[in-house]
Amino acid sequence: MSILVVGSVAFDSVETPFGKADNALGGSATYFSTAASYFSEINLVAVVGEDFPEEHIDFLKDKGIDIKGLQRVSGKTFRWQGRYDYDLNEAHTISTHLNVFERFKPEIPENYKESPYVFLANIDPDIQWNVLEQVKKPKFVACDTMNFWIEGKPDALKRLLSRVDLFVLNEGEAREFAKEPNLVKAAKRLLSYGPKTIIIKRGEYGALMFNGNSIFSAPAYPLESIFDPTGAGDSFAGGLMGYLANTDDTGESNIRQAIIFGSVMASFNVEDFSLNRMKSLSLKEIHERYKKFKQLTHFEDI
Amino acid sequence: MSILVVGSVAFDSVETPFGKADNALGGSATYFSTAASYFSEINLVAVVGEDFPEEHIDFLKDKGIDIKGLQRVSGKTFRWQGRYDYDLNEAHTISTHLNVFERFKPEIPENYKESPYVFLANIDPDIQWNVLEQVKKPKFVACDTMNFWIEGKPDALKRLLSRVDLFVLNEGEAREFAKEPNLVKAAKRLLSYGPKTIIIKRGEYGALMFNGNSIFSAPAYPLESIFDPTGAGDSFAGGLMGYLANTDDTGESNIRQAIIFGSVMASFNVEDFSLNRMKSLSLKEIHERYKKFKQLTHFEDI
Repeated sequence: MSILVVGSVAFDSVETPFGKADNALGGSATYFSTAASYFSEINLVAVVGEDFPEEHIDFLKDKGIDIKGLQRVSGKTFRWQGRYDYDLNEAHTISTHLNVFERFKPEIPENYKESPYVFLANIDPDIQWNVLEQVKKPKFVACDTMNFWIEGKPDALKRLLSRVDLFVLNEGEAREFAKEPNLVKAAKRLLSYGPKTIIIKRGEYGALMFNGNSIFSAPAYPLESIFDPTGAGDSFAGGLMGYLANTDDTGESNIRQAIIFGSVMASFNVEDFSLNRMKSLSLKEIHERYKKFKQLTHFEDI
Repeated sequence: MSILVVGSVAFDSVETPFGKADNALGGSATYFSTAASYFSEINLVAVVGEDFPEEHIDFLKDKGIDIKGLQRVSGKTFRWQGRYDYDLNEAHTISTHLNVFERFKPEIPENYKESPYVFLANIDPDIQWNVLEQVKKPKFVACDTMNFWIEGKPDALKRLLSRVDLFVLNEGEAREFAKEPNLVKAAKRLLSYGPKTIIIKRGEYGALMFNGNSIFSAPAYPLESIFDPTGAGDSFAGGLMGYLANTDDTGESNIRQAIIFGSVMASFNVEDFSLNRMKSLSLKEIHERYKKFKQLTHFEDI
């Protein structure tokens, strides 16, 4: 099954205590698509400027990603510059230049409109809504967001959530949006907005899934070398949605497995800057790390 | 198998956003012993003052805890006053009155000296060492510590660790003691000091165990109502050591199960102030929550 993803394609300049990358390929839709491409067909909708090089286009094509929906317009590509200190859970933004992304109006190509799976990466909730208006009865819609939209457009976000099956967000964002410090209560409130499933990302602490009365706790993979956490959340969503679309099963038990595949992709992604580690994975490596997650969490029943 | 525990018995005055408790029974050895009493025999060594009421003595006796080693001396019992804000991971100390604890010299009763399991709660590492000098070849020794000793007596702590099988400490303490921000590398360094197993407590994020090349990630139980996190770490250690002593098996697989029992006891403990929730549990409740941990973490293999 194919996945329609709408989000950003960008240049990132990132510095961490372990090195740096300048003007490297980044953006939510890029990380998502690359991670998901190991599992299913991807229909990408995003916008880049005249400065976006052919080599990146070729990279996306090589990954089998359909880029018919990647608009190229006059102007410059979205650029983000950030820094991480030893606490790799927190990004410090140095500068954000939206450039062509500022006027991004997603136009969904005709053959994308029947994509059964849709991922709305972190963009303006009104634009996310507009995407849903263009697609034809998708089977499963997931979306991400950030504190900027939670604070600036809470009502637009709530409207969107009434049409969303899976809502993925960070721990702090969940508490802020639900106005509730307790995470279980916060998740229940978010479920009341419409989504059947809430996944709360906790960085190096893993993720929690809430679905009806069921809760699933997934660990993050304990890594000795984390170079760059940029894109971890979108890689997570990519592995997750990729597996759901691949198996075409959105049942609770399968979402648990999908979360582990998402965690696998995120764990690879942070091992190097930009997409350097994630771009050349084998399915064997992915499956081996899934098995390691199984070992990591295993304990005998009583 | 019996467990010798050496630590504090105290009065705690705690305020959280959800209520408060004044001069309630507390202390590391109290929480540890109560949690462990559901699994095995406990030999308690601690000190209290003349103000320590009979009802608390009776409570400990009711739990089947051997209190021959509980010294009662002239003066006042250790008192701690603290506060938690919405971030329940962080305790703010308002006052600490060591009182009789300041001159605490553990004297191990003769029949305690053959206890095969020993837990050295968070006290001066020189006193912890002194306890080990008094006991006869214990089968399994575990210890806790805190930043105060890591900063003030790092060499005494390292000397102690050469005789310890299991070292339990908080995430921030592990990073500080190992002088290493990456937790996997920090754990490896701590393993090099002697213990075969390191368990890093992460509050509401659970715990990580490092044993040889094996890593186990245990979640914390997501609770809707957390009233008071005081004693969670000692309840965790109590459930953990209690189960190990009960089964008399310190193999890696059994330590994983013991960590879950520790997490179960900690999850009950934080549901009310002081020992209010933990004091009246049934084995059925404990086993049911263990099963819930199994459901919480379960995902299918591929």
